[in-house]
Amino acid sequence: MKLLKEYIEKYGAVTDSSILKVDSFINHQIDPILMMEIGEEFKNRFSDKKINKVLTIEASGIAIAIAVAYALKVPMVFAKKKKPSTMGEAYNATVHSFTKKTDYNITVSKEFLTSQDNVLIVDDFLAMGNAIIGLKNIVDEAGATVAGIGIAIEKGFQPGGEILKKQGLHLESLAIIDSLENNQITLR
Amino acid sequence: MKLLKEYIEKYGAVTDSSILKVDSFINHQIDPILMMEIGEEFKNRFSDKKINKVLTIEASGIAIAIAVAYALKVPMVFAKKKKPSTMGEAYNATVHSFTKKTDYNITVSKEFLTSQDNVLIVDDFLAMGNAIIGLKNIVDEAGATVAGIGIAIEKGFQPGGEILKKQGLHLESLAIIDSLENNQITLR
Repeated sequence: MKLLKEYIEKYGAVTDSSILKVDSFINHQIDPILMMEIGEEFKNRFSDKKINKVLTIEASGIAIAIAVAYALKVPMVFAKKKKPSTMGEAYNATVHSFTKKTDYNITVSKEFLTSQDNVLIVDDFLAMGNAIIGLKNIVDEAGATVAGIGIAIEKGFQPGGEILKKQGLHLESLAIIDSLENNQITLR
Repeated sequence: MKLLKEYIEKYGAVTDSSILKVDSFINHQIDPILMMEIGEEFKNRFSDKKINKVLTIEASGIAIAIAVAYALKVPMVFAKKKKPSTMGEAYNATVHSFTKKTDYNITVSKEFLTSQDNVLIVDDFLAMGNAIIGLKNIVDEAGATVAGIGIAIEKGFQPGGEILKKQGLHLESLAIIDSLENNQITLR
């Protein structure tokens, strides 16, 4: 997606530890016009899929998920990292975070995911793929169908993309980073 | 706001402990069409304010903030509850949660809030007002201006609204709950 790649080249930054910082337009400060364009782009890429629900994980997936849900005119659900005291029965999955070197639980109320649902899973980043696999496990547990995976920025030098495609999932990444070596952003 | 009140009456639920559950359309499953309408409503209510930034707090404020930021065509920033390792200098505030009976820290990078900013603070709920006061403290620390406070659902039987108005802040709440007694939702 041309606009997203332009934002990454213009506003993205690479830290010393080879982390791509996009916190000026995606995951701290957010550009709402870019988000709505991302929503339209995913709508077009999954136009044949009859999606009836969008699923993501708090917090940085929410802005993208609301944009694509608005484009598709379907509800979106975000998995929570802590189960609220008011939540009834829920689906759960464990996710390992390589960045934070810790496991965490994600949870979705059984009220909002059923076997009738055809679900588009979206997130801002794809690296090792663990968060997406956790969301997929929740969709599977509900007996629902994964219609596809929509990612804003995929780290092409990490295995998440290959892992998801080997499972037969339809993955669409709007920008793929091939390398962050020498603090240079190389886009595919 | 008529549409939001209709959603609350139709889909809202009151738990045994007098908590209003709106997790089918605001804070777990989210209706994107309602969100965009809420965005337009806040744009109209603050049309004289020359807002150039929208500020909220993760996670359940994000959907509303992105909608109002899109309506106003300005960036939005969400305060984080944990400071990421990649974040540089930041503004911080402590917020006491009465629901969770604990204090937590919120943080916004100094990159994304400056003395030039005229900020609309938004959130899904207003009860005691502590989260909003925390966000206001961060805006003050940055030398920026609070243009107003936009709330989807205010609990009118708790003091947050009065506290904010006594500070001279322009508060707009789209729905005010006067009572949840006897598990009945009474809207103002």
